[in-house]
Amino acid sequence: MAPPAADIMDESMMRAALGLAGRGPAVDPNPRVGCVLVVGETVVGQGWHAGAGTPHAEVAALSQARDLARGATAYVTLEPCAHTGRTGPCAQALIDAGVARVVFAQADPNPAARGGADLLAAHGVRVEAGLLARSAAALNRAWTFAVTHDRPMVTWKLATTLDGYAAAADGSSRWVTGAQARADVHRLRSRVGAVLVGTGTVLADDPSLTVRDAAGHATGTQPLRVVLGDRAIPATARALDGQAETLITPGHDPRDALKALQDRQIRHVLLEGGPTVAAAFLQHGYVDEIVAYVAPKLLGGGLPTLASLGIGSIADALECELTEVEQLGQDVRLRLTPTGRNQ
Amino acid sequence: MAPPAADIMDESMMRAALGLAGRGPAVDPNPRVGCVLVVGETVVGQGWHAGAGTPHAEVAALSQARDLARGATAYVTLEPCAHTGRTGPCAQALIDAGVARVVFAQADPNPAARGGADLLAAHGVRVEAGLLARSAAALNRAWTFAVTHDRPMVTWKLATTLDGYAAAADGSSRWVTGAQARADVHRLRSRVGAVLVGTGTVLADDPSLTVRDAAGHATGTQPLRVVLGDRAIPATARALDGQAETLITPGHDPRDALKALQDRQIRHVLLEGGPTVAAAFLQHGYVDEIVAYVAPKLLGGGLPTLASLGIGSIADALECELTEVEQLGQDVRLRLTPTGRNQ
Repeated sequence: MAPPAADIMDESMMRAALGLAGRGPAVDPNPRVGCVLVVGETVVGQGWHAGAGTPHAEVAALSQARDLARGATAYVTLEPCAHTGRTGPCAQALIDAGVARVVFAQADPNPAARGGADLLAAHGVRVEAGLLARSAAALNRAWTFAVTHDRPMVTWKLATTLDGYAAAADGSSRWVTGAQARADVHRLRSRVGAVLVGTGTVLADDPSLTVRDAAGHATGTQPLRVVLGDRAIPATARALDGQAETLITPGHDPRDALKALQDRQIRHVLLEGGPTVAAAFLQHGYVDEIVAYVAPKLLGGGLPTLASLGIGSIADALECELTEVEQLGQDVRLRLTPTGRNQ
Repeated sequence: MAPPAADIMDESMMRAALGLAGRGPAVDPNPRVGCVLVVGETVVGQGWHAGAGTPHAEVAALSQARDLARGATAYVTLEPCAHTGRTGPCAQALIDAGVARVVFAQADPNPAARGGADLLAAHGVRVEAGLLARSAAALNRAWTFAVTHDRPMVTWKLATTLDGYAAAADGSSRWVTGAQARADVHRLRSRVGAVLVGTGTVLADDPSLTVRDAAGHATGTQPLRVVLGDRAIPATARALDGQAETLITPGHDPRDALKALQDRQIRHVLLEGGPTVAAAFLQHGYVDEIVAYVAPKLLGGGLPTLASLGIGSIADALECELTEVEQLGQDVRLRLTPTGRNQ
């Protein structure tokens, strides 16, 4: 058993590496990774991955440490990769630099990149895995999901009146929820690679699907706008306004849309409607998370949030696990994970 | 200005009176009232009202104090009454006993009983009103509502899936919500004078509408069961099973039902469905509070929680104020007060 002092040192350095990882972009094809190189009690190098096409965290830290990396311990939030992508394999770089020990958090879930730990060990580097692994995985939740499921993670966002309507009978839906909930939707959008709606929603609501600030101005990196379906969209539609990239995916099969997004290395998609698109994704088991905004309003009729799932009896309802409840102004945000029936 | 010590004494004695008041029955035609009689720093008598037909709190306290009440201060949670009901006026009893000072919390909102403070003052008793008045009123929320509005307070209880359905397409609704939420409904029932449903709900669900414990046994005082509507109910219906009293109110006008309940001195009605009854009460502005249980389930179709309110546009939605959000097991309970449009 290692002495407590070593444990405390390891954890403290891994927390530092996690902090560095968090400096990476929230939305990227690649995971966020941080690396700290330590000799004795001295940090000789640190680095993080700043997004696809830039150096990996280990390489960034090694280039800072130079010769001082010899004999060092490397703390990395993700298992060093063993494959050559746009950059060389990090495991080999650590070996070449003479690093003596590697402590990493999350094991690499990516089949194409896996094997770094074995490669390091085969070259006599001491390897320890799993320290703060959950924190590291949480930092890359969607990426981890996407590389293990070979498709982007899907979050379905819905805004509904207390009695279940997304819009009134005349189609009006501005606004079901209040300002705080709507600002929260923009935060959701800013953390995904794509937002997806059906052609019906584009024709009915003409949403711009951009991330906007309180003043209504597009702000920050915009997610890809994806429109699913076969109906023609007018060239004047806001979804085609050039404020963000737009992808039209014909047909109605969620699989095709998800394949197109996986090919583009999109890790997380926000499903924003309408009822038919939501039902199609749910029926295929392609909704991994639900974020529901429930407004304290009653309509007594209107447009449903969700089209038919072909469910006839309460025993066959699609069950979810409630993971979070939060009041946002006068609205309530629920986070849920579908668990039943269609999964 | 009274010295601080007196203020502290007054508040402490009023809190004691509120504690006594709380011993009264939660469901009763009469309010819960407590009384403490104090001479110097000595409590010489205390009493509370144990329900219609029993002595009022002041009379109970006076009969305990006997001659010691002379020159005492009486702390009462509600303005002493000035009218003769089944018991004589309490204000007169306090005067006759020689009480020198009366401190009361809530002013009597009941037009028929009002005037106690004036009567006391006219007889030279020092009267102070309003100490902890809000706590006292909260203790008798439904009673206060009923005597000021000349009708019972109405709480609409609904249980709904996340997408707004009270039951699946085949009518099945057992169970939309989980055990904790259902137990909470029984607690709600145990605190009202009546539960009300439409004949449609009796025919569709055959509910017993009783307060039951976890084992399913009827427990405690049962609320009056009220069935609104004109459709014939089979004699075998659980709502007629004799486990609690049942009142059939023909017609569909909520006013008639509320009048019948006011005549029976029911102070609080729990509206338990169905959608048509709920819509009728909401459209008349007769829903004073909503308790909604939202279950983490999706149906994609089924029986709505609420029938048409004749609302066509989102701007005309019936707005509510959200007053409480609580997670109960996997369900979420929202408390709301209707504020908009139909109020």
